[in-house]
Amino acid sequence: MGVSLKDVAQRAGVSVKTVSNVVNSYPHVTPQMRARVQKAIDELGYRPNLTARHLRKGRTGIIALAVPELGNPYFAELAGAVIDAAARHDYTVLVDHTAGRREREIHVSQGFSSHVIDGLILSPIHLETEDLTGRDETVPLVLLGEREYEAPYDHIAIDNVAAAREAVRHLLSLGHRRIAFLGSRTGHERQPAHMRLRGWREELVAAGIEPDEALVVVTDGYGRADGAAAMAALLDRGERPDAVFAYNDLIAIGAMRTLTERGLRIPEDVAVAGFDDIEDGRFCAVPLTTISPDKSAIARLAVDRLTARLTGQPPAEPRRERPGHRLVIRDSTAGRSR
Amino acid sequence: MGVSLKDVAQRAGVSVKTVSNVVNSYPHVTPQMRARVQKAIDELGYRPNLTARHLRKGRTGIIALAVPELGNPYFAELAGAVIDAAARHDYTVLVDHTAGRREREIHVSQGFSSHVIDGLILSPIHLETEDLTGRDETVPLVLLGEREYEAPYDHIAIDNVAAAREAVRHLLSLGHRRIAFLGSRTGHERQPAHMRLRGWREELVAAGIEPDEALVVVTDGYGRADGAAAMAALLDRGERPDAVFAYNDLIAIGAMRTLTERGLRIPEDVAVAGFDDIEDGRFCAVPLTTISPDKSAIARLAVDRLTARLTGQPPAEPRRERPGHRLVIRDSTAGRSR
Repeated sequence: MGVSLKDVAQRAGVSVKTVSNVVNSYPHVTPQMRARVQKAIDELGYRPNLTARHLRKGRTGIIALAVPELGNPYFAELAGAVIDAAARHDYTVLVDHTAGRREREIHVSQGFSSHVIDGLILSPIHLETEDLTGRDETVPLVLLGEREYEAPYDHIAIDNVAAAREAVRHLLSLGHRRIAFLGSRTGHERQPAHMRLRGWREELVAAGIEPDEALVVVTDGYGRADGAAAMAALLDRGERPDAVFAYNDLIAIGAMRTLTERGLRIPEDVAVAGFDDIEDGRFCAVPLTTISPDKSAIARLAVDRLTARLTGQPPAEPRRERPGHRLVIRDSTAGRSR
Repeated sequence: MGVSLKDVAQRAGVSVKTVSNVVNSYPHVTPQMRARVQKAIDELGYRPNLTARHLRKGRTGIIALAVPELGNPYFAELAGAVIDAAARHDYTVLVDHTAGRREREIHVSQGFSSHVIDGLILSPIHLETEDLTGRDETVPLVLLGEREYEAPYDHIAIDNVAAAREAVRHLLSLGHRRIAFLGSRTGHERQPAHMRLRGWREELVAAGIEPDEALVVVTDGYGRADGAAAMAALLDRGERPDAVFAYNDLIAIGAMRTLTERGLRIPEDVAVAGFDDIEDGRFCAVPLTTISPDKSAIARLAVDRLTARLTGQPPAEPRRERPGHRLVIRDSTAGRSR
């Protein structure tokens, strides 16, 4: 409050322009100079008025985040993480949901509210590579999630194949052999879109087990009701798996609901593993084993890539970033006695 | 596409100005005229370019929604409903979360990003009435939720006292007498902020039962972990209620986790009821009885009030709107045999 760029320049014994370069994270400032200016900033408690700076540069200070469904806790938790990461760069986040509909995703990616947003983070489900051509390149775009695109954009996604393989390997290590996959989808045969299903297949094959396609259940969506219906369908056609690996935690939670209703014990009769590590899974009556993507890292990388492009300091090449993940083992596979 | 205001005017046999008045929902258009123009609009498939219209009027077409926590499914579900309701008015929603911190709520209410938003819907937790004075009145504000304010703003909230009383009445009707309340908070003694706790008290008194303050547990927050800790604290100090009424579903779900860990059966040993009707509660191992606020109506009323003020056709007086709610009885109180 009240401390100006000029005050910082005087304290550091440098020009206002140099302080400005440091504050704006311009390249070509030596580390020594950066440290000297930063020291003065810290001593004086200078806080750049970033919102005003956005406006001076013809920016709004708003980035958009478009996710398939805010009602899915994974995306709600991710949105919270993006809001926090963006706040550190003094950006406000406009959140929109696309319901995973391709036309909504196209609308958003093609310059959705481009008069008010500086950049866009999009987590697509049905968007195709060709939908990404001819968009307004003045609004940088960062893609999130499992889908792969042959398009020149930064893309942040955990290694979904490796993560799925870890979950399946865990189920195999417990002695399970008939492992169902709930939450497959149709219409994506051409591209390697369904990384988690691929991980399921690869790990089974690596263990010398022929993947049984009768244990793969296609769902309409990715919610709890879809998981409950998928589990019921599997049991109704006489398939009784030892274990279930679900596309996400919501499907896994729905499947557990059906198993409980049918009087099957978790994990004694059927072990269940999910994907996403949403908070719900931790508080289930039988806490859910899951793959935990590093949501903070995903959010931070997405915002960092976007703000780097906005301040003109990115590498020319779009980058593929792979934030981490880990397997979290809970009672739904390991039981309470572990 | 390609159909203009003029085309509609010609088809309807009225002036372009009249069509414009109908499209812009101005008052003083007779119902007959409105129907006639609407018929032409429908026949021609005319779709007003609302975004351009926003810009012509110096508006951005963006409204902000500030909620305490997107990680709370109630607010995530509500945000989804607001996004849908706003889309029907061609408004985009900028979602922010305040973490329920008073200074964030003040920042937001005082004109947060007012250069980019046309209006604001705010769901406050710790904001005080005096924080609402002196704000930028060019940005209309609609308040959501349980807190009451002596301030001239539209306020949308279900009848929290009545809803809480219904939940407690249901527990009483099952024969429970020692009914705990989990999720009280401190520091709000002056104003009638805690409607749900008040409902708990009033209904017990109406049933001739002295409210036992030893059965009221204060929590730090409103999450699952808070509910689990509150239930554990209650049991650890030797209180064993027949039933629990939780401030919200997350607290109820956390309480159920603790009860399960302690080997207590739901509802045979302790019945549990929540508030919010989030999807999680429907898919618990023991599905959760809850109060279901009409989230669609809340969202629609909030957006309608805001857009009415933006188009200059509201009543001068701020309104108190009370969307509906209902008690949803599930296994956590009624058991599976009902």
